[in-house]
Amino acid sequence: MGGLPAVRTIYLDNVSTTRPDPRVVSAMSPFLAEGFVNPSSPHREGQRAREMVEAARAEVALLAWCGSEEVVFTSSATEANNLALKGLCRARGRRGDRLLVSAVEHPSILQPARSLAQEGIQTMELPVDSQGRLDLDCYRRSLDPRVCLVSLMHANPEVGTLQPVLDAARLAREAGCFFHTDATLTAGLFPSIWNEAPIDLMTVSPHHFHGPRGIAALLVRGGIRLRPQEEGGTQEGGIRGGTEAVALLAGFGAAARFARFEAAERRQRLVFLQADLRRRLEKSLEDWVPTGDPVERLPGHLSLCVRYVEGEAVLALLDDEGILAGSGSACTRDAMKESHVLRAMGIDPVLGRGSLQFSFSAFNRPDEVEEVARILPEVVRRLRRISPFTPSGG
Amino acid sequence: MGGLPAVRTIYLDNVSTTRPDPRVVSAMSPFLAEGFVNPSSPHREGQRAREMVEAARAEVALLAWCGSEEVVFTSSATEANNLALKGLCRARGRRGDRLLVSAVEHPSILQPARSLAQEGIQTMELPVDSQGRLDLDCYRRSLDPRVCLVSLMHANPEVGTLQPVLDAARLAREAGCFFHTDATLTAGLFPSIWNEAPIDLMTVSPHHFHGPRGIAALLVRGGIRLRPQEEGGTQEGGIRGGTEAVALLAGFGAAARFARFEAAERRQRLVFLQADLRRRLEKSLEDWVPTGDPVERLPGHLSLCVRYVEGEAVLALLDDEGILAGSGSACTRDAMKESHVLRAMGIDPVLGRGSLQFSFSAFNRPDEVEEVARILPEVVRRLRRISPFTPSGG
Repeated sequence: MGGLPAVRTIYLDNVSTTRPDPRVVSAMSPFLAEGFVNPSSPHREGQRAREMVEAARAEVALLAWCGSEEVVFTSSATEANNLALKGLCRARGRRGDRLLVSAVEHPSILQPARSLAQEGIQTMELPVDSQGRLDLDCYRRSLDPRVCLVSLMHANPEVGTLQPVLDAARLAREAGCFFHTDATLTAGLFPSIWNEAPIDLMTVSPHHFHGPRGIAALLVRGGIRLRPQEEGGTQEGGIRGGTEAVALLAGFGAAARFARFEAAERRQRLVFLQADLRRRLEKSLEDWVPTGDPVERLPGHLSLCVRYVEGEAVLALLDDEGILAGSGSACTRDAMKESHVLRAMGIDPVLGRGSLQFSFSAFNRPDEVEEVARILPEVVRRLRRISPFTPSGG
Repeated sequence: MGGLPAVRTIYLDNVSTTRPDPRVVSAMSPFLAEGFVNPSSPHREGQRAREMVEAARAEVALLAWCGSEEVVFTSSATEANNLALKGLCRARGRRGDRLLVSAVEHPSILQPARSLAQEGIQTMELPVDSQGRLDLDCYRRSLDPRVCLVSLMHANPEVGTLQPVLDAARLAREAGCFFHTDATLTAGLFPSIWNEAPIDLMTVSPHHFHGPRGIAALLVRGGIRLRPQEEGGTQEGGIRGGTEAVALLAGFGAAARFARFEAAERRQRLVFLQADLRRRLEKSLEDWVPTGDPVERLPGHLSLCVRYVEGEAVLALLDDEGILAGSGSACTRDAMKESHVLRAMGIDPVLGRGSLQFSFSAFNRPDEVEEVARILPEVVRRLRRISPFTPSGG
């Protein structure tokens, strides 16, 4: 069976993607095989498929505390982020022509922002502090009526820092600017932020909370007009065409339902696993620094820079031991460049080469933490022995 | 089990979507549950997922007789069509600023074309004849160096007509214009057209050949530069970002493999089923006209206009009898407007209200044809009895 993970794998790369919940897979199965018809078809089977689409939409709305009519389905968080920025800026009418983003956003924000710059949108990348948090003073000074949109991620995949999204959204509203948050990593864990702050647009990605890949959503606050980017049929209120993938929507709906009931328990569990790993590494591993905000961070996310080793080499040896972790952002891996996140935080590039992330999910167990805390120091010791950069005492 | 079709359903709405092949569903299953990791992750499981992505790409390339590096995965045919038009026209550089499309294209071509018009691209909608075929003389006269791109669909979902794509592609190449064909309905049945004509861009959609929804591809002839529309990560050579949905790709690959081996047999079967239905209706049904080209048409597609009835009403009564057919395009159904295809063909709008499509797939059986040929005339008679438009003798 090609493509199946080994039996004893410890999967700690949950910021890249999470294991689909078996209950989610079960919810999808009937629609992969028999319930395949097109929701736009006029016959009764088509109407039943339409009802399934709307049931999934209602589940996402219940999770995010928004109205069903505010949910626009897309194929990925990347598409949702593109739609938020391009859809809003290209429909801005007589609003301002400035776009504010943080310097540590995902490439699916930074690249569209750079493209919009070619269309006359002035894009500003706002600085962050050494823990990766938005500089709120600088942000406040940058807000004025020339700004049409602010985009600030909720959690950063590399360093785990949670941005002050609620404050930032309120400030944007006061200044009359629209506000988007890329909640790709957090929508399943902090589902109520849409209700707690004047967020106008929000990206939700179910494969980060044990749902399927190939489906996501952009929440669009009622009354906001976006220019469609995938134009065609009348699906999604004309905002986004394409025949609905009903099986994926059924999976999204199920994942949203389980996240809604289990978010509090999952957060608690994730915070415990991460704190436990950190505590253990403080005893068992030398010469490393945690990255990101120590308190305001994505539950279950431990990021660190280990001195005198390359993160990629550590990953490879951990992989040999059946431990799957992360180093930098999966989405920009091929580029093999210095991390734009660590650079924006002012982290020494030499230290940054030892960047690692361990990200837990609700499926991880405490004994896996013990394993990692035992194996990681061994792996690091082995690498340091052969590294030319290790000080003689190291 | 909500969403499952009734047991005795005769599904003849295969231009809207086709039933997933059980072998395709089996190929997807391992990747929905266990084989879920991100192909961009550096560990071994990630590499295995990456191999799966590339295996699927190779299967699509084998089906379409193109190079693997010419396959760009997208989430839908709609996205592929948008990428073809916007990606090419927005990257056109010093090429011409004209875009030629036929008047009977899918909305996912016509809408992007109209959007591009706002960016200074002159869009011309070329006329078709009364059978829905491109007027080649007019087309030839419209080709000149000011044209950067031609987009012509292979098969029309409403009237089944196959366009002269091979001739049109050759003429475009001679004139120095790029050529795109939306082969959404035909890529699984006529896989070799990419190899037979100088087609530069081609849309392939597996849910039209018993594959999954939520995945499709744009074939891009080597060396052609497109401007990315969904920007973000480095996936798909930077042309199209977003974490790959490996399960959907596994399904796409499997559907492509089966189509490759079975295309000839499927075509034969489909042509037979359609001819059989037409022959039987010629005996059993009065006052109707077939639409589209009688010879050059999508195998298994029978379209007609029935006089003195509304297509929607016929569909509803057929639905009661367990027969699922089509009337107009599923993607524009909500609009409830006159069909742009029938209008372009010059068909009397009153006659056009009785438009119907029966589209077969490889899963349909000859006894289903008999059923339809028996039930359709009954349904039409019932409706004509209560129609104010039926002539007294009807």
